[in-house]
Amino acid sequence: MGIYLVRFEKMGEMFWGVKEDDQIIPVSNVNTLQELMRHYLNDLREITEKQKDNSFSINEVKLVAPVTPNAIICQGVNYSSHREETGVDVQKPPFNLIFSKAASSISGPYDPIVKPERVKLLDYEIELAIVLKKEIHPCSRIEEDNLHEYILGVTIANDVSARDIQFLEHQWLKGKSFRTFCPVGPYVYVPEPDEIHEIFQLELELSVNGEIRQKANTSQLLYKPVETLNELAQVMDLSPGDLLLTGTPGGVAMQFSQDEMSLLSSLSTGYDEKKNIIDRHDSCKYLKEGDMVEATIYGAGGIHLGTQRNEVVLERRLSK
Amino acid sequence: MGIYLVRFEKMGEMFWGVKEDDQIIPVSNVNTLQELMRHYLNDLREITEKQKDNSFSINEVKLVAPVTPNAIICQGVNYSSHREETGVDVQKPPFNLIFSKAASSISGPYDPIVKPERVKLLDYEIELAIVLKKEIHPCSRIEEDNLHEYILGVTIANDVSARDIQFLEHQWLKGKSFRTFCPVGPYVYVPEPDEIHEIFQLELELSVNGEIRQKANTSQLLYKPVETLNELAQVMDLSPGDLLLTGTPGGVAMQFSQDEMSLLSSLSTGYDEKKNIIDRHDSCKYLKEGDMVEATIYGAGGIHLGTQRNEVVLERRLSK
Repeated sequence: MGIYLVRFEKMGEMFWGVKEDDQIIPVSNVNTLQELMRHYLNDLREITEKQKDNSFSINEVKLVAPVTPNAIICQGVNYSSHREETGVDVQKPPFNLIFSKAASSISGPYDPIVKPERVKLLDYEIELAIVLKKEIHPCSRIEEDNLHEYILGVTIANDVSARDIQFLEHQWLKGKSFRTFCPVGPYVYVPEPDEIHEIFQLELELSVNGEIRQKANTSQLLYKPVETLNELAQVMDLSPGDLLLTGTPGGVAMQFSQDEMSLLSSLSTGYDEKKNIIDRHDSCKYLKEGDMVEATIYGAGGIHLGTQRNEVVLERRLSK
Repeated sequence: MGIYLVRFEKMGEMFWGVKEDDQIIPVSNVNTLQELMRHYLNDLREITEKQKDNSFSINEVKLVAPVTPNAIICQGVNYSSHREETGVDVQKPPFNLIFSKAASSISGPYDPIVKPERVKLLDYEIELAIVLKKEIHPCSRIEEDNLHEYILGVTIANDVSARDIQFLEHQWLKGKSFRTFCPVGPYVYVPEPDEIHEIFQLELELSVNGEIRQKANTSQLLYKPVETLNELAQVMDLSPGDLLLTGTPGGVAMQFSQDEMSLLSSLSTGYDEKKNIIDRHDSCKYLKEGDMVEATIYGAGGIHLGTQRNEVVLERRLSK
């Protein structure tokens, strides 16, 4: 088995650690995942062994996001089930839709999702997130056989989306980048090199107030990680610790008709016309104050990425 | 007058420096603009004075991009003249269109723009780029009177865009993020606090092979920096050294009709239909091998941000 990497707060200080069953073994208090990888990754098992006497129960600490990326790169409409509900061709498309989220959208696995006052249509998107270990640059050649050299591991991410801002304002960055719009964790699963393919055979499941909304398997990804990373290498540099969010399956709250989506997603449609479609859009599935979003990812082989639990709170309540 | 900050390569090493007339005065060889600001910004004039004996001609060195951002945040369709040619309402719109470019797209002010093999419709976009000095966070309140605390200065950026990728693939990140798609520099003009408003009264001018294509004044920006930074503060964190590209005026190569733009920019239009529009799109203004793009920004008060000169080269030529 691989290693479950965590980051946690104890006595007001932040630490990286390893989870074994319900115990947390502290490893280092360096600031970033990049530093942890640089200085401790090769000796992680050895340090864990040595530190075992200093372990404590997972209930004694607050787990925070186990990543500190420079960039969050995301794939859009990368499951057929989500393509269908978005009103686009369900087949693997001729291009890999790429966008990004601001790094400051990251929050912890049990932190509240804060609904900004200006946001009406708040949606969820469970995704398998890949954590990079090695720089991606123009000469990178990622293959099935060396994928483990590029990938540190995987974790759960929720690509929380303000559908009104996302479509009223055409480019998705803003509507997907509000603070707390990217809960990550609780663990990064760092697989053994020979386990790397198991992480793409995992079950995703997201529920709201106990009702299952999204359920899929990462084997259904249309653009797979190797193909995606190779394409990205030809466009931009990526750094160790950066995240690739691989897309969400069907079951999101958003339920626009094909005609509505066509108008909403066009730059040329007038703002008022878009606003009308948004305003009359009726779906009881959007997130509201007090909703509890739970997201989990696990595999048949015993890999379990844990469960996020994020309560939806209103911005103004929080600031009081 | 303020200070013209530069970064340059000499004898294989990178330095930050100050330009005075045609002389360069070296200041420090720290890696990032963030480090330079942290350690040297307050004493920049003093250091420059002390180092004057070590100055040399600007012709002796190779100027590189005078920034090292974590993030490049961009405003879209933020001049009426560019809104008109894009086929959207020319008035100030109800929203500030925000997108981003990958930091690895940055290149030097005299570096070639490399046209990737897969890109057919290569376009230019001169923009005033604002370089941040202070963190932007939820409590930031930026006003006309304290803007100089948040802004280090301004420089020229070219938001080079692959129109085919940009519209075929819906989200703009990829088509605007290829390496060399963001020439920056040659100088960051660091104004005196009482000059801060002059930097929003500057003339922009971009030419291709000597023919002027874009000409405007930054006073025509629809969403101004104060309003834009305040909105961004409510969405995402920004760091010292990050760039805000304020949008491009009219005159780009892209000349789609309103109907074509409507279809091209919609997520629901089929790929083949978009491809047909792209393939039959005829504009001799797109950049091709050997074209020389020159971009300059200057003001009546004597501020001059210099001139970028970027030759367009083909990817395959470069790799030979």
